[in-house]
Amino acid sequence: MYPIPHRSKTQRHLLAVGLLMILILCISSFAQASDPLPSWNNGLVKTKIIQFVCDVTNTNSENYVAPKERVAVFDNDGTLWVEQPISTQTVFTYDQIKKLAPQHPEWKTIQPFKAVLEGNMSAVSSFGTKGFIKMIVTTHSGMTATEFTNEVNEWISKAKHPRFKCLYTNLVYQPQLELLTFLRANGFKTYIISGSSMAFMRPWTEKAYGIPPEQVVGSSVVTEFRIVDNKPVIIRLPKNNFTDNRAGKPIGIYQHIGRRPIFAFGNADADMQMIQYTKAGKGKRLGLFIHHTDAKREYAYDRKSNIGRLDKVLDMASSNDWIIVDMKKDWGQIFPTPK
Amino acid sequence: MYPIPHRSKTQRHLLAVGLLMILILCISSFAQASDPLPSWNNGLVKTKIIQFVCDVTNTNSENYVAPKERVAVFDNDGTLWVEQPISTQTVFTYDQIKKLAPQHPEWKTIQPFKAVLEGNMSAVSSFGTKGFIKMIVTTHSGMTATEFTNEVNEWISKAKHPRFKCLYTNLVYQPQLELLTFLRANGFKTYIISGSSMAFMRPWTEKAYGIPPEQVVGSSVVTEFRIVDNKPVIIRLPKNNFTDNRAGKPIGIYQHIGRRPIFAFGNADADMQMIQYTKAGKGKRLGLFIHHTDAKREYAYDRKSNIGRLDKVLDMASSNDWIIVDMKKDWGQIFPTPK
Repeated sequence: MYPIPHRSKTQRHLLAVGLLMILILCISSFAQASDPLPSWNNGLVKTKIIQFVCDVTNTNSENYVAPKERVAVFDNDGTLWVEQPISTQTVFTYDQIKKLAPQHPEWKTIQPFKAVLEGNMSAVSSFGTKGFIKMIVTTHSGMTATEFTNEVNEWISKAKHPRFKCLYTNLVYQPQLELLTFLRANGFKTYIISGSSMAFMRPWTEKAYGIPPEQVVGSSVVTEFRIVDNKPVIIRLPKNNFTDNRAGKPIGIYQHIGRRPIFAFGNADADMQMIQYTKAGKGKRLGLFIHHTDAKREYAYDRKSNIGRLDKVLDMASSNDWIIVDMKKDWGQIFPTPK
Repeated sequence: MYPIPHRSKTQRHLLAVGLLMILILCISSFAQASDPLPSWNNGLVKTKIIQFVCDVTNTNSENYVAPKERVAVFDNDGTLWVEQPISTQTVFTYDQIKKLAPQHPEWKTIQPFKAVLEGNMSAVSSFGTKGFIKMIVTTHSGMTATEFTNEVNEWISKAKHPRFKCLYTNLVYQPQLELLTFLRANGFKTYIISGSSMAFMRPWTEKAYGIPPEQVVGSSVVTEFRIVDNKPVIIRLPKNNFTDNRAGKPIGIYQHIGRRPIFAFGNADADMQMIQYTKAGKGKRLGLFIHHTDAKREYAYDRKSNIGRLDKVLDMASSNDWIIVDMKKDWGQIFPTPK
């Protein structure tokens, strides 16, 4: 060890200029050579993202972050794929109720199952979050883990979105696919932190986003290990285990990853705590929210929406240095070009 | 697609011989060029491990496994480091009780805290698992996640083992360090699945074993996200959340990884379900248990031990194709050579 020499004002100035030049070179090399985010329109948001990645991966920067600490977390519904007019897992849940109804004659008289079977959607809504969790927990249990995965795979390979008339996995956002690839190419580990069920997402996230099951954190039911007919199986029980939403998101991150992310991306008030937790760490951090402003190409909703409500965040964004991504303005293309 | 031609008996024979030759070449290349497991004595166990890794990584083998499915899980106490005469987390817990006692005058009259403070260890034992969990949950909570990590880091950098008079992190098993490295070099992702607290292990597992926090699964207390003095923090609460032991181990794997391992290593009856779950998957799988047989270099214990009891497993091993590693016979060196 030797003492760090005191730097003169001129030296400090030269150092600052040098670091700035490295940063500019880094950004322009990304921007010119081959744009890593071609579906993102040029502007402040795109620049901030590229600048952040340049900065934390630059060993000469005071904001350098070691690769193992480069954790990026993304909400799923409304952040990585479409969540309107109702969330995809909700559609799956309704379809499962209809599919499994013959084995559950009692559903004809039990709410909110009765309302779903009768197609009375306003009645379904009247049972609120509690009714929703009841439906999820019931349809996502009573079978082995493998059987449930098979149910999801079968459904996701066939079900189509009511407006866009294509598979839900075709309604992932092209700019986000590019961002995920860009982050991973720069040593980031990308995670999903979603209020949806882990078991509903894990079967298809690797194919859709390049995010493997072990990097998908979400809500879960209680599960149990049993030996059935001499075969060890995991049984899914009709009991909620963990709700990975709002204040649950930082908890999901802590329990699952055990590191604080340096980059977080959401689209709703329910993602606020995840972004707060991310930004509260030491050093440079980025927190972003998508604002759905594009009714023509996708949907436009915010303060009054029941799904993906973005209200408090809009008021608090500027004072907290949260970046609001304006879908209409910032995204040149919404969905991947069909192959 | 074209039909697979029917193979003659001679063709099948040639194919089998060819595959066998490839396997032998693969194993001998590992064994001769540079032994990946120098602290493992030559013998059936070492051969089986190397053969397994050769086989699942050989694209020409019918047992080939894609890299993303190469999940290897290890118990911690007694499998990766010493667990006698009492588990390291238990020593930490006792030390924390003594350290925190001035802030908890009530412990002088509440069991099993009273017994710990009086040094009456037989009384402590009499409170069994319930008393043990009470002590863990109490000493591992009432602070933020960051504060707890600091407590662990401070303790683990100073506390010494009563017999070996060195840091606990020096009492990791050299043969297992080599095995972890060997597996990772062959595309495996290595995980810890332990009954100990995640929060107790994660601060030091990366340095000790090269296993990052996000690949450490263990028991946990309930945690809560709060904004305290305008700062988002995670508070650890005095309530058990999940016990990652026995039938809890496959559940921990399912919830955390979402893939079934192809390789599992334990040392006690409490690891049996983890190995059963691993072995029940399709294709080639390896399940191993360390049998602590070396009182001279480490400890000798099995059927009657309160810590790391290995009893049922010894009876069931051969009929289930579980490999029993005889520490005395199979390990040439136990601990890393001091630097």
